[in-house]
Amino acid sequence: MRPAMLTLWTYDWVPPPPRGHVRDIRLRWAMIEAGLPYTVATVPFDNRGPDHLARQPFAQVPFLTDGGITLFESGACLLHLAEKSETLMPRDPAGRADTLQWLIAGLNSVEMVSVPWWFIGLSRPETNPLDGWLDQRLMRLADVLASRDWLAAGRFTVADILMADILRVPALRPRLGPPLAAYLDRTLSRPAFDQARQDQLAHFAAADAGRPS
Amino acid sequence: MRPAMLTLWTYDWVPPPPRGHVRDIRLRWAMIEAGLPYTVATVPFDNRGPDHLARQPFAQVPFLTDGGITLFESGACLLHLAEKSETLMPRDPAGRADTLQWLIAGLNSVEMVSVPWWFIGLSRPETNPLDGWLDQRLMRLADVLASRDWLAAGRFTVADILMADILRVPALRPRLGPPLAAYLDRTLSRPAFDQARQDQLAHFAAADAGRPS
Repeated sequence: MRPAMLTLWTYDWVPPPPRGHVRDIRLRWAMIEAGLPYTVATVPFDNRGPDHLARQPFAQVPFLTDGGITLFESGACLLHLAEKSETLMPRDPAGRADTLQWLIAGLNSVEMVSVPWWFIGLSRPETNPLDGWLDQRLMRLADVLASRDWLAAGRFTVADILMADILRVPALRPRLGPPLAAYLDRTLSRPAFDQARQDQLAHFAAADAGRPS
Repeated sequence: MRPAMLTLWTYDWVPPPPRGHVRDIRLRWAMIEAGLPYTVATVPFDNRGPDHLARQPFAQVPFLTDGGITLFESGACLLHLAEKSETLMPRDPAGRADTLQWLIAGLNSVEMVSVPWWFIGLSRPETNPLDGWLDQRLMRLADVLASRDWLAAGRFTVADILMADILRVPALRPRLGPPLAAYLDRTLSRPAFDQARQDQLAHFAAADAGRPS
């Protein structure tokens, strides 16, 4: 049997709270949707040394190896995978451009507000200075998804994988109005998402056995 | 003469403070570096109506038209332009992947912290809850740029255009240590950046004449 060319790198272990939400789930989901075989390799969660930083300079996961190429940033990995499968991105120039712009919009118009908003919320301030901006961005996105099922090219694409994972953050859920809640249901009900989530949960659960209790 | 295929869309006018920093500068800079001819078209700054939202759902600029394709998100436009010119991105798979990951890192690892940090700072809070996270991200980036001149592929690429513009935010400047300050000097000293900045300033200055005073 030939080894799989794609290797997904994630942590060897994480504590329970982020399980199911570590960003490797974006890549798992995309590879399962596209039927791309992959193996999983790990870097230590506790000690992020020079080997890790050489491949992920911000000391995070995931990263992806594809033969001799290593890529970090989940958004970059998703675009790299999208080139391998029409399931993830149409091949025509207009469909490609539409998928590309919505993937970047997830990263730079929605997540650029939602992740700092979530981070600030962890310390439970009386008011979150990003509340208004977040609500405005979600409202704009809801306006788009009120009249169509998927973000780009009239079909499910890798841009939906990314945007849905962005909107999955538990603290965000109560702020999603009907169009975004319906979009999230539609997206997360795909079998490939469930498989990706189960695979991630199983990966970290298996690691518990090897940890000192 | 054939019309230029590329059209950069920006505001018809902005007040003085953001001039020189409106994100259309990223696209101007890239197109000048690559020698790609383009024309400039505008949408109203004051009234952002359905026509604008149909092309930029978050009511921002820039967006780009390339023949029959319209793209929003500066990061997406830069990747689209990079496909047109080896000046912006190498053609070999490893060089492409390196450029892609660093462009996405600009958007999702640096700007995802620096823009919300800047936004919160506008209201002059006693402490900014994103200070620590921003400093950590800048430190990681400085570690990378302490040992090389450019982010990706051993040469100037579109990833440097984006990262340099991210680091240009005036409030950020005092926080940049020597490696990042030197990187910014190296990047912004390119004639194409100066041309892009002058072109943007001239565009908005010309619009002043048509405004009620």
